[in-house]
Amino acid sequence: MKNKDEAVVIFSGGQDSTTCLLWAKKEYKKVYAISFDYNQKHKKELDCAKKICDELGVEHHILDMNLLNQLAPNSLTRSDIEVDTSAPEDGTPPNSFVDGRNMVFILFGAIFAKQKGISDIITGVSQSDFSGYPDCRDIFIKSMNVTLNLAMDYEFDIITPLMWIDKEATWELADKLGGFNLVRNKTLTCYNGVMGDGCGDCPACKLRKRGLEAYLGKKTTVHN
Amino acid sequence: MKNKDEAVVIFSGGQDSTTCLLWAKKEYKKVYAISFDYNQKHKKELDCAKKICDELGVEHHILDMNLLNQLAPNSLTRSDIEVDTSAPEDGTPPNSFVDGRNMVFILFGAIFAKQKGISDIITGVSQSDFSGYPDCRDIFIKSMNVTLNLAMDYEFDIITPLMWIDKEATWELADKLGGFNLVRNKTLTCYNGVMGDGCGDCPACKLRKRGLEAYLGKKTTVHN
Repeated sequence: MKNKDEAVVIFSGGQDSTTCLLWAKKEYKKVYAISFDYNQKHKKELDCAKKICDELGVEHHILDMNLLNQLAPNSLTRSDIEVDTSAPEDGTPPNSFVDGRNMVFILFGAIFAKQKGISDIITGVSQSDFSGYPDCRDIFIKSMNVTLNLAMDYEFDIITPLMWIDKEATWELADKLGGFNLVRNKTLTCYNGVMGDGCGDCPACKLRKRGLEAYLGKKTTVHN
Repeated sequence: MKNKDEAVVIFSGGQDSTTCLLWAKKEYKKVYAISFDYNQKHKKELDCAKKICDELGVEHHILDMNLLNQLAPNSLTRSDIEVDTSAPEDGTPPNSFVDGRNMVFILFGAIFAKQKGISDIITGVSQSDFSGYPDCRDIFIKSMNVTLNLAMDYEFDIITPLMWIDKEATWELADKLGGFNLVRNKTLTCYNGVMGDGCGDCPACKLRKRGLEAYLGKKTTVHN
């Protein structure tokens, strides 16, 4: 029998993974949140993650993954590289892409999960708003799922509640789950490290804001 | 054009990966060897690896992977668990199996490789003598190759020179490559940390010895 009572959520403390955490809290009896310290520019990200877990009563683990930054320095970790998330015209990913990041996170999440007899791993990746990151695509996740199961001879399920929905629908989901204010005020998505609505200028803030406004507009229309 | 001049070898300093390193030295102009420090019982393994690289003039990198041991403690890393490599009768892997180890090694080898514009990654895994480790099987390697390429949008080739050959043939290959004495005397395969021919008693030594004797027997017959 598969363990359907427990799950591991890959958790950054941003809008998407917080919405996944709220979702997992409803679906499972016990949820573990895993965050990674890879020398993010904004250590505040890990503080945010911790506070959200405290508030939701979720067991939180922070794993040291500084090696990732040593191997693949990029604009999200190096203070001397400016963040530019716009996809270059040559089809290469933007310079905020950390090579292999989601693969590393999911792999260590899976190793952690297996030690506890857990098979369900939840990640907030989304192909809808994937900004050119190859490791947010559904085909990567499906391939990763097969590889993980072969590597450890175990029946993991990688679950991606946000894969096919956009930011507007992600706001809607958080609201349905009773976490609209939590996500709006206590998460950190902004590349400049400003909590909640953020700096408003960076690409992550713009994407988040566009979704928020679309959702709020729709909500008002529906309620009137 | 693919870079066929350089390769990364996942390198433990044991018989198999040393044979792969010798092989890679013939096939490529420049070879990087990558070892992982995951708190092995026998730190000597990393010393061996370093000495072999020095002798062969190979650039050697040791990456810190202690997290692996924290997440998945096992008999190869924990001094309070005795090594038992015999496959249990219930079909589960032996207690020397480190969950996800080869997947972690290949993934970080790939991240390292991509930073240098390298696509060829060489590992000494072998399905012939795989001792019940699921991450030594060819099907895992092929699936891993696809997943890596999707994750990083890059054309890695995972190359496994030993996949279908047994220990006897591995000795023969090392000999053909001019490295018989190096492999025999300077590698560390033994679970009890004894270099070269090892303690002679542990399962790794027995497997290595059986192959060596078979190869030496064949060689004598052929030469007489």
